[in-house]
Amino acid sequence: MTTPWAQRYALRTHSMAGSTIRELLKLTQRPDIISFAGGLPAPELLPIDQVKAASDTVLSELGQQALQYSTTEGYPPLREQIVQHMARYGIKVGLDNVLITSGSQQALDLIGKLLINPGDSILTENPTYLGALQAFTAYQAQYVTVPIDDNGLQVGLLEAALRTGPKFMYILPNFQNPAGVTLSVTRRYDLIALAEQYGIPIIEDDPYGQLRYEGEHIKPLVTLDAEYLGCDTHGGYTGNVIYTSTFSKTLAPGLRLGWIVAPEDVIGKLVMMKQGTDLNTSTFDQMVAYEASRDGFIDKHVHTIREVYHHRRDVMLASFEEYFPPEVHWTHPEGGLFLWVTVPESIDTAELLKDALQQKVAFVPGHSFHPNGGGTNTMRLNFSNAGDDMIREGIRRMSVAIKQRLHSTA
Amino acid sequence: MTTPWAQRYALRTHSMAGSTIRELLKLTQRPDIISFAGGLPAPELLPIDQVKAASDTVLSELGQQALQYSTTEGYPPLREQIVQHMARYGIKVGLDNVLITSGSQQALDLIGKLLINPGDSILTENPTYLGALQAFTAYQAQYVTVPIDDNGLQVGLLEAALRTGPKFMYILPNFQNPAGVTLSVTRRYDLIALAEQYGIPIIEDDPYGQLRYEGEHIKPLVTLDAEYLGCDTHGGYTGNVIYTSTFSKTLAPGLRLGWIVAPEDVIGKLVMMKQGTDLNTSTFDQMVAYEASRDGFIDKHVHTIREVYHHRRDVMLASFEEYFPPEVHWTHPEGGLFLWVTVPESIDTAELLKDALQQKVAFVPGHSFHPNGGGTNTMRLNFSNAGDDMIREGIRRMSVAIKQRLHSTA
Repeated sequence: MTTPWAQRYALRTHSMAGSTIRELLKLTQRPDIISFAGGLPAPELLPIDQVKAASDTVLSELGQQALQYSTTEGYPPLREQIVQHMARYGIKVGLDNVLITSGSQQALDLIGKLLINPGDSILTENPTYLGALQAFTAYQAQYVTVPIDDNGLQVGLLEAALRTGPKFMYILPNFQNPAGVTLSVTRRYDLIALAEQYGIPIIEDDPYGQLRYEGEHIKPLVTLDAEYLGCDTHGGYTGNVIYTSTFSKTLAPGLRLGWIVAPEDVIGKLVMMKQGTDLNTSTFDQMVAYEASRDGFIDKHVHTIREVYHHRRDVMLASFEEYFPPEVHWTHPEGGLFLWVTVPESIDTAELLKDALQQKVAFVPGHSFHPNGGGTNTMRLNFSNAGDDMIREGIRRMSVAIKQRLHSTA
Repeated sequence: MTTPWAQRYALRTHSMAGSTIRELLKLTQRPDIISFAGGLPAPELLPIDQVKAASDTVLSELGQQALQYSTTEGYPPLREQIVQHMARYGIKVGLDNVLITSGSQQALDLIGKLLINPGDSILTENPTYLGALQAFTAYQAQYVTVPIDDNGLQVGLLEAALRTGPKFMYILPNFQNPAGVTLSVTRRYDLIALAEQYGIPIIEDDPYGQLRYEGEHIKPLVTLDAEYLGCDTHGGYTGNVIYTSTFSKTLAPGLRLGWIVAPEDVIGKLVMMKQGTDLNTSTFDQMVAYEASRDGFIDKHVHTIREVYHHRRDVMLASFEEYFPPEVHWTHPEGGLFLWVTVPESIDTAELLKDALQQKVAFVPGHSFHPNGGGTNTMRLNFSNAGDDMIREGIRRMSVAIKQRLHSTA
């Protein structure tokens, strides 16, 4: 038999356009390319010595446990650490509100598995995180989108979209991927009120919340929701928000560790889903992460990360000012990993990428972050993964490609 | 808001009866219970020192890589190791035929995600692995089953089931979970011929293939299929089988590492599915497993595991002979981790479990391994996780519970 499986057997063919990032990640492995395409932490900041000491401790003291199967819910001390972390974010939750996941990408997959039936509509910001679209589209979701501006989701435009009956809202309130914008506190209050009014839950994806470089911390939606509904007084959260975050930006993405905070009955069902998905997240990695991040290490480490990324963001913004022609515009994120650049509508950034690659520089064209199309003149640039000189040189190279396109389309 | 989510929002409610094993795994944590319920490797055989040395090497030499995101396909040296391993199993595959998964449970999830549309029918052995039912049922699968006997799937009864048009066949040929039986070589040839004839692919789940304690190794279905179709000569497999196995039984389940071998176009689509599911399997764990298992360590280690489990199987079989009343019957597996016990039909093993727990011993009632019901007088016992004295004492306790039931139902 030589017939391809796709012809011979009915493989599910729901559109999975999201191979863009994957193909681009392959480009980042070419040493001559300066890549702003990924969302990778700075490699030189990865806490190798701390993880090494933690691995040794875990294997010496609890080796039999670390190498064995474990409960689907996650390693209890790590879950307790999340409970403490969430308390600092202003919400009192119990152990039964916490599930450890294999990165927050798995959180999105499990949420999709729990909530999405084929054809269900999901409300997202436009643009939104490509990985969420990949997770939800695998369950045959449709999308209804609401545009963002410099203050995040345009909540004033939300009600019309809510009336179409989406299954849930998927929101990135802090330093959004891809656009870098942050949802204002006023809009957060409006958003949680509308969730309650329409009975439509919110998935709050917060991978970058701890990476703020300027401005004041804004409470997460899950905290505001608990306050609004008065449901945090019992030590267990029962509101409208499923919150997810990750160790990937604060400790190390290679360990694939994230978490979900949600009402206890939702966690119970997600545990059942996770059991069929991977039984449990790596016991070893969970125990190593717990051991590595305790005793205040993660706070000190996040402080270092903030300083470095803050500086790199400023270097990239200054390079935009220096090199980009006046027709180019960009966001000014207060944190996170990404800048969002808009070029004149005459330029298709998917085409621009080809020119940029000839100049040995890469980014992600913005189109793929738009669930229902559009955004062909936008692009996402990551500033966490490259040093100052690389950032300046990369932006200089991009400016060459942009100016070429401007002239050829003028 | 205090309404539970399940009432307020339409959570997907496809039956997930499989909480049985999870609840039982919780029982195994009670120190006074002798548990034959899990499928856990012997903790004293877990290669702690080897993993510790490997972790140190990986973090010292390749720390930045180990803690970073990595490609969805898996760590190339580990994939190459799988290519070599499969070659020893008689099938020549290329790197593009191999995908690393977060345990073989994730392999089943990804296969379900790729192949199952709601309402699709899956052909399984009866009984079959509960975790596969959990993985497939999450995609709203139905089941058509074919009974097994001491030589595995009754292939003579297969055609009638194939004519009902299942999406794929899910088969555990070696030391099946739960029943411990092995598919004979004659039946394997018949099975792959029928797969080709009916155009219905086979998912071959082979977690225990290396754990054979007596008899001759039988080639896996994927190898026989490649030989039958003559498609292994090009160094890339293009046949009807998706093969999956795991490091959980040969190295350590706590690392959550498995793999899939399949035609290249199937791997390509599974990679897209995996990207939306967890981006990549723990980079650190993949590199540690590669480092720990190289230079022949895993072969030596598997040799040790075989000796210990062989002995424990014999101890449990001897204990059955010594303690169980003549009305009780059981399988004689040539490998793996499980024995399958049948009691008179008057006894419901779910009820028996309650008596057994009073006697401080646990097993898994067989009913939950039957996709469409039945098997209420069967049960699965694991022999890998307890030492000799515990096995003997546990079976003695079980015999007390069984004899009580026999007398009360007589």
